[in-house]
Amino acid sequence: MTLLDGRPLAASLREQVASDAAAGPAPVLAVVVATDDPATEWYLGSIAKAAAAAGIELREERASDAPGVLGRLDALSADGLVDGIICLTPLPTGLALAEAGLRIDPLKDVDGASPLSLGRLASGLPAFAPATAQAVIELLHFAEVPLTGAEAVVVGRSIVVGKPLAMLLLAEQATVTVCHTRTRDLTAETRRADVLVAAAGRAHLIGPEHVKPDAVVIDVGTNEGPDGTMVGDVDTAGVEPVAGLVTPVPGGVGPVTTAVLLRNVVSAARRE
Amino acid sequence: MTLLDGRPLAASLREQVASDAAAGPAPVLAVVVATDDPATEWYLGSIAKAAAAAGIELREERASDAPGVLGRLDALSADGLVDGIICLTPLPTGLALAEAGLRIDPLKDVDGASPLSLGRLASGLPAFAPATAQAVIELLHFAEVPLTGAEAVVVGRSIVVGKPLAMLLLAEQATVTVCHTRTRDLTAETRRADVLVAAAGRAHLIGPEHVKPDAVVIDVGTNEGPDGTMVGDVDTAGVEPVAGLVTPVPGGVGPVTTAVLLRNVVSAARRE
Repeated sequence: MTLLDGRPLAASLREQVASDAAAGPAPVLAVVVATDDPATEWYLGSIAKAAAAAGIELREERASDAPGVLGRLDALSADGLVDGIICLTPLPTGLALAEAGLRIDPLKDVDGASPLSLGRLASGLPAFAPATAQAVIELLHFAEVPLTGAEAVVVGRSIVVGKPLAMLLLAEQATVTVCHTRTRDLTAETRRADVLVAAAGRAHLIGPEHVKPDAVVIDVGTNEGPDGTMVGDVDTAGVEPVAGLVTPVPGGVGPVTTAVLLRNVVSAARRE
Repeated sequence: MTLLDGRPLAASLREQVASDAAAGPAPVLAVVVATDDPATEWYLGSIAKAAAAAGIELREERASDAPGVLGRLDALSADGLVDGIICLTPLPTGLALAEAGLRIDPLKDVDGASPLSLGRLASGLPAFAPATAQAVIELLHFAEVPLTGAEAVVVGRSIVVGKPLAMLLLAEQATVTVCHTRTRDLTAETRRADVLVAAAGRAHLIGPEHVKPDAVVIDVGTNEGPDGTMVGDVDTAGVEPVAGLVTPVPGGVGPVTTAVLLRNVVSAARRE
């Protein structure tokens, strides 16, 4: 049994969040949505449910184009009643997440979407990391995986996961390699990893041949499988006999991400 | 002969800078200095000389403590006559470069000291990279070193060189590993490198045993040697027979850095 289940950690985080949220006025999370993509709606639903359970008020703001999104982010940043702001993807054509992120007040940037948050994170200044990247670190701590001097390999260089996670892993004293689509020999890179994080967005990219025996494998992927189910970047069944630990999809990074996001909202609300 | 001399590249960059600077009102670079460290004075002198030769006006601002530095950065950021701002190290005790950098208008942040510049860089948005990190990329392009899919290893994780350079190398499609003092087996990491960048700040840290045959070795180190001369992070004489190319110190990254800094000042002046 080498599955690293994220749900017990998520439950304990959510419990703490609910207790902290109850200690004052209900924190308010604003969500800007500019799509009717079913996966986004599903994610929004799961945030709404978790927020309600934690005593966090959700404010949903719909926009239909780039100026609409930017206008809402400006208004929410200026709104003293809003504690945290997230902007769901996909965004309207032509609007990069980093551009949108620039319009989120860094103190309310609970999903680390702003380039300023990323730069602060890289510089060792207080900042919210993207919840997914932070969730990976929380899972590694939860499983008591030694990170100092560890060989960490991240597959994927997005600004939502790969790059901020590289910064977080460096701060944990790991030696960090970032791989991507142009990496020459992915298998050789990943087989060096004590800690392998798959965040490439390609279903079952990582198989047993990519994994060093006893490595810890964290699967950030949430791809749509052939039958409409959610599948990760890791062939979990194949990798499980080789790895020391591997997170399942669903039930690994996902629930921890939602809990971390809500924790950030409470932190943002309680900062003053 | 495997030395990669930075001076011809620096000369050609400076020539272009002077020509661009002459095409309008003289660009203005403000330098905030809060130390009488001889190495800093020497560096300031070299910037002053290069700026004068390029037709860039230098404004030197002295401060003696952290509030003085921050106040000057605020004033210079607001000053419409100033195009570029840099803040020399060491800074007064208790003031981190990232904190100071936050006070520099990103449009004037010609040495990429602001966490916002670093975050924009990582996000693929227009930004000035730290001149040293950019100089490494310029040298690699100058020497026509293939970077797509290349194995790049950066030794050092500072916010001035290591981290921004990792972002620049990822943008060049290299697979990037960042090593540091807690890296378990530095030799094993560096021996994988097609492109090895030494930015650790430790004299002669990198010897021939760290270098893969024919690798390109870029030495960012500027350490004080036993006899007061400047020595790099690389044992150049030892590495030269193994490497395909290695930059000397002095005369490698340094002169290119100054030229890139001045180029950034002209870009900042001409942006409108």
